[in-house]
Amino acid sequence: MRIADLETPALLIDLDIMERNLCRVAAYAREHNLRLRPHTKTHKIPALGKRQLELGAAGLTVAKVGEAEVMLRSGTPDLLVAYPVIGERKLKRLMEVARETQVTVALDSMAAAEQLSGAAREAGLEIGVLAEVDVGLGRVGVAPGELVRFALELMRLPALRFEGIAFYPGHIKRMDEAGLATVMRLSALVSAMLEELRAAGIEARIVSGGSTPALFHSHLIAGMNEIRPGTYIFNDRNTVLSGACTLADCAASILTTVVSTTVPGQIIVDGGSKTFSSDPPPAGAEVSFGHVVDAPEAVFTKMNEEHGYIELRGPNQRFKVGDRVRIIPNHICAAMNLHETVYGIRGGEVEQVWRVEGRGKLQ
Amino acid sequence: MRIADLETPALLIDLDIMERNLCRVAAYAREHNLRLRPHTKTHKIPALGKRQLELGAAGLTVAKVGEAEVMLRSGTPDLLVAYPVIGERKLKRLMEVARETQVTVALDSMAAAEQLSGAAREAGLEIGVLAEVDVGLGRVGVAPGELVRFALELMRLPALRFEGIAFYPGHIKRMDEAGLATVMRLSALVSAMLEELRAAGIEARIVSGGSTPALFHSHLIAGMNEIRPGTYIFNDRNTVLSGACTLADCAASILTTVVSTTVPGQIIVDGGSKTFSSDPPPAGAEVSFGHVVDAPEAVFTKMNEEHGYIELRGPNQRFKVGDRVRIIPNHICAAMNLHETVYGIRGGEVEQVWRVEGRGKLQ
Repeated sequence: MRIADLETPALLIDLDIMERNLCRVAAYAREHNLRLRPHTKTHKIPALGKRQLELGAAGLTVAKVGEAEVMLRSGTPDLLVAYPVIGERKLKRLMEVARETQVTVALDSMAAAEQLSGAAREAGLEIGVLAEVDVGLGRVGVAPGELVRFALELMRLPALRFEGIAFYPGHIKRMDEAGLATVMRLSALVSAMLEELRAAGIEARIVSGGSTPALFHSHLIAGMNEIRPGTYIFNDRNTVLSGACTLADCAASILTTVVSTTVPGQIIVDGGSKTFSSDPPPAGAEVSFGHVVDAPEAVFTKMNEEHGYIELRGPNQRFKVGDRVRIIPNHICAAMNLHETVYGIRGGEVEQVWRVEGRGKLQ
Repeated sequence: MRIADLETPALLIDLDIMERNLCRVAAYAREHNLRLRPHTKTHKIPALGKRQLELGAAGLTVAKVGEAEVMLRSGTPDLLVAYPVIGERKLKRLMEVARETQVTVALDSMAAAEQLSGAAREAGLEIGVLAEVDVGLGRVGVAPGELVRFALELMRLPALRFEGIAFYPGHIKRMDEAGLATVMRLSALVSAMLEELRAAGIEARIVSGGSTPALFHSHLIAGMNEIRPGTYIFNDRNTVLSGACTLADCAASILTTVVSTTVPGQIIVDGGSKTFSSDPPPAGAEVSFGHVVDAPEAVFTKMNEEHGYIELRGPNQRFKVGDRVRIIPNHICAAMNLHETVYGIRGGEVEQVWRVEGRGKLQ
């Protein structure tokens, strides 16, 4: 099948760019002796998880139990659920997953840990736990000052294996001078936390962190020995804006069709918030809901559910109804989740058709 | 099953409120002799389309061919595709739908009309068309001054049946004084367009319009004889902010679980942009991604994919990990599209489990 034969909107993945992205991060992790446990929330496709493992990933990361169930199909020997699992039925499902592969959960409360411990004990299993620490994002995680106390409490619970700590410096938005300074402060914070743990006789075998903008600066964070990047497999416009990649590194784009041209200076394409997600660009960037590959000066100004508004700028931008326009989305993780099927392309050919098996696995 | 037994996040639909919403609009349409062709993009569930038909809807509306295919299961005698269908394969699929039920397409270009005419002729079918007019939103539609010319061109194409006009006054955001003035200007515009069509000897049997904020003012638009509301079945926070309903009219809410409370004054729930969509409230409203039913003074300030940040305000707001929190989303159409399954509730009981059959039917 050729790309020209696809109906739109269709999410395309350039296989060569994807492979290059995968290899680059695998090589970086190897070079710096970092354990790589990619977050599969970005692609949600077991075949791609399998490829990440083939390239040296030690395991895979998911956010939800439903994603863990799907990602078992990658054959992964190890799964990190980077999200507290709360609720009896979910924990039962997680124990079924843990019968198939080694499972670790990152959590930040004794309530979550006690539930997990109870479920593991009942299932006759041992589950790994990482103590989630808040290193500045203000989302989840115990305060660094609470870490030793929390780790000691975790270690007292039966059927859990304390493995170390996890954190997500999502407050680093861009690797400019300020971003680099934040990375260095983070490094000092992590070192201090590890020192306190050691002083309390606690071994943190896994120190898991990292974020997309700071991905290639991960080796600067002293003591961190695991990264779990997600977006790097495809990249997106927000990653470009963060400075962590270029447009040429964006493997995923959405093929749309021009469906209306009645308003002068504007075209409407057949993809809106139900195709791209309504995720805006980071603060400070011009509001555009994607990079219009076929008209780089155009601005994707607005969306409704099924309508994308593209404001044409610059000379020689002429489109007619039926023309096809490729757009790199702002946030590929959210966009993937909206597509039942995505297409792996090389040149003009569609070489792979993947069902997004983990999409909508909210529970 | 009881609500308490559901895993979260779960999209709940209060069946009594939904039925009241459906009956209210059905009665309004009957009273004002308006043909009701509800837009099913909001619910995407054939069983709910069937209920709309039972209550007097003349047909159903969809945006995509994939949604039309799904909505056939409602048994509808009539389907409006309120979106130009572009591309040979899509048109072939649409013709298969048209073998099962009467199909009408709203479009604004001769390119779309010629493709549709060709596909209909090849299939040996006749398809209805509505000329889409731009009445002020600046999205799709021919300019009012172009309508007669466009209608005459449409009427010349074989295998199409010119049925009238369609428009969407999505620029009416709120029915305050300014909104009412816009409605009255729209009424004058529609009257003038119909007069011009009549003068050219063109009969517009269907004059299809309306929008959610102005829904109950539809009878003020002279000559409009069809409405195709979508959101009214459930309503949402944005509809409340537009003034078209109250919180008590919101049938849909999302049940979440508190998964973290480590940051003082804040709780994290297990639903973010992959559960609610990242659709913001209308301009001017305080940025909150939903109305927190169990803490009405709280503000849903921020989202990541699987994390909802709720800032607690006011006294007596205490939550612990594992507590459940119900939230009315900003935009229910976008939220429904993210859920595989939704739950019809009455009191504390789950009475219905519906698969969202039309979700993600992007093509």
